Amino acid sequence: MIARLSAGHRLSRRTILGPGDDCAILRPARSSQLLTIDSLVEGVHFKAGWGRPEQLGARALAVNLSDVAAMGGTPTACVVNLAIPRTATMPFVDRLNRGLRRAARGAGVDIVGGNITSAREFAITIALLGDVGVQVMRRDAARPGDDIFVTGTLGDAALGWRILANKVRAPARARAFLVNRYLSPSARIEAGARLARLKPVPAAIDISDGLLQDLSHVLDSSRVGANLDETKVPLSTAYREVARDDLSHALTGGEDYELLFCVRTSLSERELSRRLGAQVTRIGSIRRRHGLQMAHIKLPASVGYDQLRG
Amino acid sequence: MIARLSAGHRLSRRTILGPGDDCAILRPARSSQLLTIDSLVEGVHFKAGWGRPEQLGARALAVNLSDVAAMGGTPTACVVNLAIPRTATMPFVDRLNRGLRRAARGAGVDIVGGNITSAREFAITIALLGDVGVQVMRRDAARPGDDIFVTGTLGDAALGWRILANKVRAPARARAFLVNRYLSPSARIEAGARLARLKPVPAAIDISDGLLQDLSHVLDSSRVGANLDETKVPLSTAYREVARDDLSHALTGGEDYELLFCVRTSLSERELSRRLGAQVTRIGSIRRRHGLQMAHIKLPASVGYDQLRG
Repeated sequence: MIARLSAGHRLSRRTILGPGDDCAILRPARSSQLLTIDSLVEGVHFKAGWGRPEQLGARALAVNLSDVAAMGGTPTACVVNLAIPRTATMPFVDRLNRGLRRAARGAGVDIVGGNITSAREFAITIALLGDVGVQVMRRDAARPGDDIFVTGTLGDAALGWRILANKVRAPARARAFLVNRYLSPSARIEAGARLARLKPVPAAIDISDGLLQDLSHVLDSSRVGANLDETKVPLSTAYREVARDDLSHALTGGEDYELLFCVRTSLSERELSRRLGAQVTRIGSIRRRHGLQMAHIKLPASVGYDQLRG
Repeated sequence: MIARLSAGHRLSRRTILGPGDDCAILRPARSSQLLTIDSLVEGVHFKAGWGRPEQLGARALAVNLSDVAAMGGTPTACVVNLAIPRTATMPFVDRLNRGLRRAARGAGVDIVGGNITSAREFAITIALLGDVGVQVMRRDAARPGDDIFVTGTLGDAALGWRILANKVRAPARARAFLVNRYLSPSARIEAGARLARLKPVPAAIDISDGLLQDLSHVLDSSRVGANLDETKVPLSTAYREVARDDLSHALTGGEDYELLFCVRTSLSERELSRRLGAQVTRIGSIRRRHGLQMAHIKLPASVGYDQLRG
């Protein structure tokens, strides 16, 4: 079973010994290392039948890649734990592995080990290592006067989830775009690595829990506050088509895996976007006074993405 | 919640940034690195109420420590994924974390990150990093003529499990010993590190699936066979008291987390035991011809520890 996790997966020279022994053996890294762990659980993070198993395997890696991207690192090697119910078919597991391996290859990540256990519900947990250069982006580094930027567009994945859950209807083209944003998120690895080379080093976080919640993590860690112009939050054409002027998905919907970063820079949005290879939008600024002030909306008492929505 | 995973946990100088950001940051290691992942799932690897939550937390780390021990490494840092049902109480999680932290402290391991997710069943998954010296023990290094040794005694954990499951009765003192061997296994880190300094370097594996199954992993990887004298398999006094001459638990019962190693050495059992700081018993030898030949027992078609016994 475990061999299936790595079948056909070529390993880099960095890996001395891949799957098959008690541990993998990796050559010593020259730079500091990043380490993160994340999990997708059936019924919580996905529902069986919503997407292809290949997408699920790729997504399990993407959520970890996004953590490394948010620190400005380069992902290198991972180990995978699969919890599989007896009802799972081998083709399902094989297809999941195929998606995982393809995603790993695409990101330059070695799958160096794995563990498979029986369980009542399906879960895939990945621990990922990454290299980081001299500069690393932390969420506690936001300073008063920094501008707040986000990459890409927000709220697409949350809308995609609502479409799959039959809570929202959408025209075919918008539906395909939004559902794909939910099922096949792509981590901003390249943009993260380029961001980490800026001076001063930005503070950064990936938007996994929702813009307001993830921004509040940055504010709490950095002991600062922010002014946010919610009308500036970047929305996709599909989002506008489906949700009109309802900003809630963009503000509190999670799993977009875009980057939020804070930096004082003379670069314009356009220059920053060109330099990062990703569309960048300024949505506010960091201030000394604690709290999050929005331009038009009064914040509800509870914001953020409810992971238990399933 | 995640903060609880590391509350009161002091980190070594090796860790630049512990829990609380997207990733942990670790200083570059001078030596090669070991990486492994393992998981305990409720209903598969443990039953709620069988032991104290502290024991469960410690055991989740021990199964990973044992993998590092089997390669001769020194464990350094880990990340933890907790899948928690809504029915779990905070005191349970706090006590589990306390046991985990204590075990980590005892093993010199930094808990550098974690993730908590909701789930229907409780599971704890840990990915562990370790340092390894010039010599590393692999399971594919057994050579014809090597003697086969094991540390400690075997079958105790399997009997402990059967006692907890009310499948076997035992006098109070034997019961306490055997149940403890199941609930609180201790990884052979020191013995593994010392073993890896022997010349030639032994082949090694930890006994997690059962002696016959784990030995067969070594034989398959090394493309060799073995003669095994099952009457030499070391048994505890409690084991003999409860199981009498039934060797099956010692041969196929898993979760003892002792080490099996193969090496050609002029050292006696007693000298080896002294050098490793652990009782060592010679139980057979590696031969060129494939297959596993036992001295008195004809092997059943299917051997090994059935993880799905729950």
